[in-house]
Amino acid sequence: MIRSIHRTLFISKRYASSGRAIVYSSYGNPIETVKLIRYEVPEPANDQVQVKLLAAPINPADINQIEGVYPSRPEMTTDELGSSEPVAVGGNEGVFQVVKVGKDVTGIKPGDWTIPLGSNLGTWRTVGNFAADALIAIDPFGLSKVQAATVSVNPTTAFMMLSQFVKLQAGDWFIQNAGNSGVGRAAIQLGRLWGLNSISVVRDRPDIEELTKELADLGATHVMTESQLSNRSQAAAIKQWTAGVPVRLGFNGVGGPSSTNIARQLANGGHLVTYGGMSKQPVTFPTSLFIFKNITAHGFWLSRHIEQHAGEKEAAVQAILKLYRSGQFTATRVIEHIIEDGQITDEQFEGAFKRALKGYFEGGKHLIVVG
Amino acid sequence: MIRSIHRTLFISKRYASSGRAIVYSSYGNPIETVKLIRYEVPEPANDQVQVKLLAAPINPADINQIEGVYPSRPEMTTDELGSSEPVAVGGNEGVFQVVKVGKDVTGIKPGDWTIPLGSNLGTWRTVGNFAADALIAIDPFGLSKVQAATVSVNPTTAFMMLSQFVKLQAGDWFIQNAGNSGVGRAAIQLGRLWGLNSISVVRDRPDIEELTKELADLGATHVMTESQLSNRSQAAAIKQWTAGVPVRLGFNGVGGPSSTNIARQLANGGHLVTYGGMSKQPVTFPTSLFIFKNITAHGFWLSRHIEQHAGEKEAAVQAILKLYRSGQFTATRVIEHIIEDGQITDEQFEGAFKRALKGYFEGGKHLIVVG
Repeated sequence: MIRSIHRTLFISKRYASSGRAIVYSSYGNPIETVKLIRYEVPEPANDQVQVKLLAAPINPADINQIEGVYPSRPEMTTDELGSSEPVAVGGNEGVFQVVKVGKDVTGIKPGDWTIPLGSNLGTWRTVGNFAADALIAIDPFGLSKVQAATVSVNPTTAFMMLSQFVKLQAGDWFIQNAGNSGVGRAAIQLGRLWGLNSISVVRDRPDIEELTKELADLGATHVMTESQLSNRSQAAAIKQWTAGVPVRLGFNGVGGPSSTNIARQLANGGHLVTYGGMSKQPVTFPTSLFIFKNITAHGFWLSRHIEQHAGEKEAAVQAILKLYRSGQFTATRVIEHIIEDGQITDEQFEGAFKRALKGYFEGGKHLIVVG
Repeated sequence: MIRSIHRTLFISKRYASSGRAIVYSSYGNPIETVKLIRYEVPEPANDQVQVKLLAAPINPADINQIEGVYPSRPEMTTDELGSSEPVAVGGNEGVFQVVKVGKDVTGIKPGDWTIPLGSNLGTWRTVGNFAADALIAIDPFGLSKVQAATVSVNPTTAFMMLSQFVKLQAGDWFIQNAGNSGVGRAAIQLGRLWGLNSISVVRDRPDIEELTKELADLGATHVMTESQLSNRSQAAAIKQWTAGVPVRLGFNGVGGPSSTNIARQLANGGHLVTYGGMSKQPVTFPTSLFIFKNITAHGFWLSRHIEQHAGEKEAAVQAILKLYRSGQFTATRVIEHIIEDGQITDEQFEGAFKRALKGYFEGGKHLIVVG
């Protein structure tokens, strides 16, 4: 009797669409570890929204999750996609378009765009049903898919780091390494818009003049190379630039000697915020910076910050999207892997992700775009 | 006319006593750089107190000042001691007995003991006139000269570091390296008195069992060596000891690998406070400790803290002296260089300091005691 009821319920679930996802069932080298899985998507539950993928990037955190070295990760499960083995869907960032909404869902309607509120949603899938409160609805007006798909990690990190640790006012200065990274470029632009002066340190490279001009066009007050920063007589230029205004905030996305040199430029009582470690070297401080210069060293991890302050993400995202729409803010350059919408095949979807993953390890920011 | 008035005033200054001070007129190796100077001490001005030395230690900051490598130091001047060349008097800590008080001075009387409120007073002198508000008056009842002469740096540092960065409650844990230092021993004892559990890390040494017992007698919950801390399987003991209570506060007086290992033991959101760098190596953090464990790294410098919060020093000092009087708190062991009171000769005073300075570089905490 019970069995037959279950059977009836099961049959009554209509499978609205079939989906494709890039998943992993073990940890390892992402290119070898991920695979495509097909699944059926039922009608959204009353509190759910059914969405389809518009665009999703490959971010360092996505890679580290698949490698099994990231401290936050989705559970592997058979439930979500009805797979025979437990899997997790890759990807944490992206933009989806709403297809259908459950009957209890308000404030979001078919055609709207949405981005994940938290981490571990698994954005590398063509279609999915998600709890409405796990998504932020955004107005697509005036936005590109690339802008929407990449707003919620790098620009949001820069936005929060510039707001959170030191109360800066127009005319104040901050200094950062990784000036050419997604976070770095976002910080430069937000600095310009908020009246802040910035010193951005970038790696030495042959095309340094070109890059300096590009970052200056974004709003960088000054750009210097790592070797200039590490040379005391050249770094002395910073004192002239700032003309006595204390540099109270620094961002470190690199580690190693670069982080030490950034910390040395901070004024008494300054704050250094570490959000990345691209050099894979630790963050090192001369003891005197702590004792005699009263430097405080913090870390910033967007995932944790949002878990603890969920409302701040939506506010930051909506503020940055407004800047995009007004033309005052430029997205990081990405390499797009475009899949034509309509009949997406297994080969197209898997092929695009495999190429993007390969590309990730060769450099650049890679993005899957549908349509 | 004016000249004759000046002359009269000059003559009318009675020279109440003659003093001896250990001074320096250039920076360098303290043993070679310091010299004895004799001077006359006039009557104290209306807002001054005349005091005579009871005891003064040789502290690392005193040494670094004479070496010219300490960021805070007294001005060299001819005014203070009437010397022909500009000099600074050595020493920042000590206890003096009040001899006379100026007529506007209240709340302090002959026979009272006093200790300096701030830095750079120049305590290595037999007698001096100081502004009354540059001194903290203490009741000598139940105190030894050693206790009073050494209360205001190490125990006060431990007191403030335990109070300031994390709101600890009875049953909470902290971890520190340099467990056998003056600050370390004070932190252990204050921890015991305040119901806090402590893990103290000390250098590997042959007499480790003896030292462990000694620190346990002071109130250390656990003592371990640097090599145990750096060995992951041995450091795992900490998890068992703390039984799930997060270790939210760490003190670093060493730097180098020791500081990294201390930071690794902190719980999510923990705070590491650097107050010293005995290893002369920088403080190094894996990037992940900042990003994923949200560790915050601070510095503590007593001199700066007192400049900014003058009232806190007197409160801490009086609280610690109360603990001394009740027998609940033990001073760091010192090596005393005793000068007999009465007719102190140049040779006695200079000889005692030269021996103490030499002793400093051989190890131990050295203290000049008069009487």
